[in-house]
Parts: sequence; structure tokens; C-alpha cells
Amino acid sequence: MRAYVLLAMLLGFGLKLSAQNDTARYTKTPTGYLMVLRQGDDVFKEIEKMAVAEKIPSANLTGMGFVNAKFGFFDFKKKEYKPKDFQQVEMGSMTGSIAWQKDKPSLHVHGVVTDASFKAWGGHLLSATVSTGSLEIMVIVHDKRLERKMEEPLGANVLQLQ
Amino acid sequence: MRAYVLLAMLLGFGLKLSAQNDTARYTKTPTGYLMVLRQGDDVFKEIEKMAVAEKIPSANLTGMGFVNAKFGFFDFKKKEYKPKDFQQVEMGSMTGSIAWQKDKPSLHVHGVVTDASFKAWGGHLLSATVSTGSLEIMVIVHDKRLERKMEEPLGANVLQLQ
Amino acid sequence: MRAYVLLAMLLGFGLKLSAQNDTARYTKTPTGYLMVLRQGDDVFKEIEKMAVAEKIPSANLTGMGFVNAKFGFFDFKKKEYKPKDFQQVEMGSMTGSIAWQKDKPSLHVHGVVTDASFKAWGGHLLSATVSTGSLEIMVIVHDKRLERKMEEPLGANVLQLQ
Repeated sequence: MRAYVLLAMLLGFGLKLSAQNDTARYTKTPTGYLMVLRQGDDVFKEIEKMAVAEKIPSANLTGMGFVNAKFGFFDFKKKEYKPKDFQQVEMGSMTGSIAWQKDKPSLHVHGVVTDASFKAWGGHLLSATVSTGSLEIMVIVHDKRLERKMEEPLGANVLQLQ
Repeated sequence: MRAYVLLAMLLGFGLKLSAQNDTARYTKTPTGYLMVLRQGDDVFKEIEKMAVAEKIPSANLTGMGFVNAKFGFFDFKKKEYKPKDFQQVEMGSMTGSIAWQKDKPSLHVHGVVTDASFKAWGGHLLSATVSTGSLEIMVIVHDKRLERKMEEPLGANVLQLQ
Repeated sequence: MRAYVLLAMLLGFGLKLSAQNDTARYTKTPTGYLMVLRQGDDVFKEIEKMAVAEKIPSANLTGMGFVNAKFGFFDFKKKEYKPKDFQQVEMGSMTGSIAWQKDKPSLHVHGVVTDASFKAWGGHLLSATVSTGSLEIMVIVHDKRLERKMEEPLGANVLQLQ
């Protein structure tokens, strides 16, 4: 009998964990999607998963929440991003777009974060995870499939409208 | 005769005041509402009034204007917000959502404000009033009634998608 | 024969230049327009051109990119903007509205920019040009033609809903 109880307990624990992981991260709205990401979520990975699963042709997004964020400032001489990490910060605003590049989702997201002293920092978001809280993202979906393309001599990816 | 003139003047003055107070604070748009709040308006109170009057199931909003704002940075140990006031500042960006909690509108709004030296500050908005200017807010309405729920051990309100 | 070759070369060069200038700056979406402005573009001029060409009754916009920006903080005593320029900065967020004033497009745009040290600055945007990169703007169009009007004693332009 004890083995059955243990099995049931393990099963219950597993179900609870799985329920947590299975919590829907987004829902359909009349103009697109509303995402709510949760503690530990990789922000770019979740948006990319949604873009692929829902075959989003292109979209814009705005968001806010509580995150760990890595920003990068582009050095046009070295053609690389100088990165900086910000831990446990409010995402005061997040603004971006979803397009495609070589059949993969291509995100371009800027953000402004604020720390415990309320000072604001930000720029081009390289990556982010949700910290102790959530991240709410409104996605407005467009009907044309748009591509991002590296443009020279600019050395930057530019969203193509045609 | 003099009494009639005085009465007419008082009536006129009353009508003018009432017209000022009766100025519509929002108008319907194809995707939701456009709000224009005015000097002295309590930002959260006006959004909540609209949410109730228009039975908004859930919504996202973005905005900008000129405000007095109180931000709070959440102390996860004490489970309380450390507040700070900013007077006479530009609301550089305001990003938030409208949902419901125990049958009352539940707002979650972040903002970035800038002062006379153009420095930026911000975070989780606890309250705000419109200062010498206006505050324009675009509201994108969704069709599902969404609830916010306190989640433990996080100790934070999280927008529920299901 | 040489003259024909030269003519063809000049023609080709001209076509290339003209193609660059003719690159569409915006495309229609289900909720409005998506703009992608390019290096050297005058941000306000491009939005105003679109507002006129597409007879946009009124609209809200959000955006992000890489810019040179001039902000102004309004001095309510002198009734004028104290300006400050920021060169080669990320537009972390741009939030604004399109309306009309005396039959011309009237923009009201706020922005938050970030520099190479990731510090954030911003406020009321007086003007901006796209720097080494692009500027993506999502425009949500409304159906009512709205006017902006100078209101006294406020001394500020306010978006009229009626």
C-alpha cells in the first residue's frame, strides 16, 4: 500500500510542476496576442516560440514588468555590441517588432529599465529573463510577412517593407 | 431686474465650470479608446471610471503627457513598495494593462518620467495626477475578461490568462 | 558608342539613387501603418507626409530606433521650450499622437533615449533625425478627425476629443 501512496504523491508533485510549466504564456486578442511571461522565462525565446507556433507574419509589441536585462550599444567601427547587464530591474517600457530572417523569427526590441533608486537605463535589448514578478507584453499582429535584412554599409539589420 | 442679471451671471459661471468638468475624458476608437486627461485629474481614478463605465473586459495602454507621479520599488523581503515622488515631470512613456480583481478594476502601470534636466526616472507607478498640461492615453481593448491574482510565494499580483 | 555607355552608367547610377529615395517608408496594416524610417530621415516630416497622403483622421504611435534627438522642457513662465540635443542615441521608446491644427498635421511626441553608457534621457520631442540605423514606428489609426487647440491660461496645445 505504501508504494501506491508514494507513487500517488510523486504523481501529484509531477502534475503540479507540469501545471506550472504548462501555464499558457499568451492568449489571442482582437488585435493580436497578450503575453504574460513568468519568473525565469527567457523573454526572446518565448516571443520566438509564439511567432513560430502562431505563424505571425509580422508584429509590433509593447510591454512592462520585472526583469534581468542585457543591453548592448552598437559600436559602428567594430560592428559589435558593447553589452551591460542590469539585474532585478523594473522594465519601465519595452518596444519592439517581430519579423523574419532566413525563416527564423527576428526580434528587434528596445527597453528602458529602472533600478531601486528609480534611475532609468536602457537601449537595444540583447536578452532578458523575467525576475521576481511577471512581464506583460501586448502584441499587435500585422498581415504581411516581413523580413529583416542586413544592410551595408550600415552594418545593421533593417526591417524591409517590400 | 438687477437680481435677474445677477442670477444669469451666476448661472453662466456655473455652466462654464460645469462644462470644464464635463469635458469628455475619452472617446471610442476602432481598437479601444483614446483618453485625454486634464490638469488635476487623478490618472488611476479616471482609467478605473472608464473601465467600469465601458465594462472593459481587459486592455493594454500606452501614454505620455505632463504629470506628478509617485513610483514604488518593490522590496521582496518586506513585501512593500518603497515610494518616491516626482513633481512636474514629463511622462516620457506610460505602459500598462487593465484587468479585474474582486470585481474592481485592477491597473498595472509602469512609467518613465523626465525632469527639467532631461534625466529619466521611473518604474512601477503607484499614483499620478496630471500637472500643467495633459496626459494622452491610447487604450487597446481585448475581448476576454481577465483577472489579476496575488501569487505566492512570489507575493506579487499576476495577470491570469485562464 | 562611348557616349551611350556613359549615358547608361549615369542612368544606372541615377536609378540606384532614386531607388534608395523611393524605398517605401510605410506599409498599411490591419490597425494602421508600420513605418520604417532610414538614415537621415526627418522623423516629424515623414510622419506628417504620411498623415497628409493617407488622410489619417487621428492616430497614436509607438516606436524605437537609433536617432539624433532634440528635446524641450517647457518653461511655463516664459511659455517656451528649453531645448537640448542628444546625438547618436538609441530611441528606447517613442510615444505620440497625430491630430490636426489649422489644417496641418499636429504631432505630439515624447521619447526616452539612451546613450553609450546606457543612461536614459528624454521628454517632449521637438525634432529628430534617424542616425546610423533605422526607426520603426507602429501607427494605430482612429476614425475621428481630431484637432489640437492652444488652451489658455495653460499655454499648451491640448488634444480635443469633441
